[in-house]
Amino acid sequence: MKIHIPHGTESAIGSGKADLLEAIQRAGSISAAARAMGMSYRRAWDLVDTMNRCFLQPVVETATGGSHGGGAQVTAFGLEVLGRYRDLELKANAAVTAEVEALAILLRPVE
Amino acid sequence: MKIHIPHGTESAIGSGKADLLEAIQRAGSISAAARAMGMSYRRAWDLVDTMNRCFLQPVVETATGGSHGGGAQVTAFGLEVLGRYRDLELKANAAVTAEVEALAILLRPVE
Repeated sequence: MKIHIPHGTESAIGSGKADLLEAIQRAGSISAAARAMGMSYRRAWDLVDTMNRCFLQPVVETATGGSHGGGAQVTAFGLEVLGRYRDLELKANAAVTAEVEALAILLRPVE
Repeated sequence: MKIHIPHGTESAIGSGKADLLEAIQRAGSISAAARAMGMSYRRAWDLVDTMNRCFLQPVVETATGGSHGGGAQVTAFGLEVLGRYRDLELKANAAVTAEVEALAILLRPVE
């Protein structure tokens, strides 16, 4: 199962955005993180922008240097958001393992 | 938080699709359910089609009678899917109430 935290009509954070934060943390830039995730730079930038708009403080800070230039890093606040999301995800998944399995057996095999 | 069950690149069921199944159950047709939810008929039909394709058996059956005509009902299989999803959702939410709150306080107020 996948979990996200809605914010108005948007999603503030979910598993894809959490994966992206981790990739930025590792790669040191949004463009390198996007590349590593097989995602367009534009898509990665939009996801970061959504997170930065939904949360009280920025979760990613970019250095200046042109549209794709400079580096990016996850802020201390962003690491807190990421940690809390991963805690929630782990605990929720552990709580409903049997229920997820009960639903999964009703699904067709993925082609 | 919102929970969905991914199936390949799609979502087999989540809170919106579960709400739609309940609305179809009440309204007796996809078009009336869509109206009740403030959703286009096309959108509701697409969500039903996705569920019917993802699960082993149809979750909604439509009667014949033109493109918007006839009625629709949630099948016994669909009611089982719905029940299992609602169980999962309730149990997961109960397990992470504190973690959801810990994340929610980091969000901006929704405008």
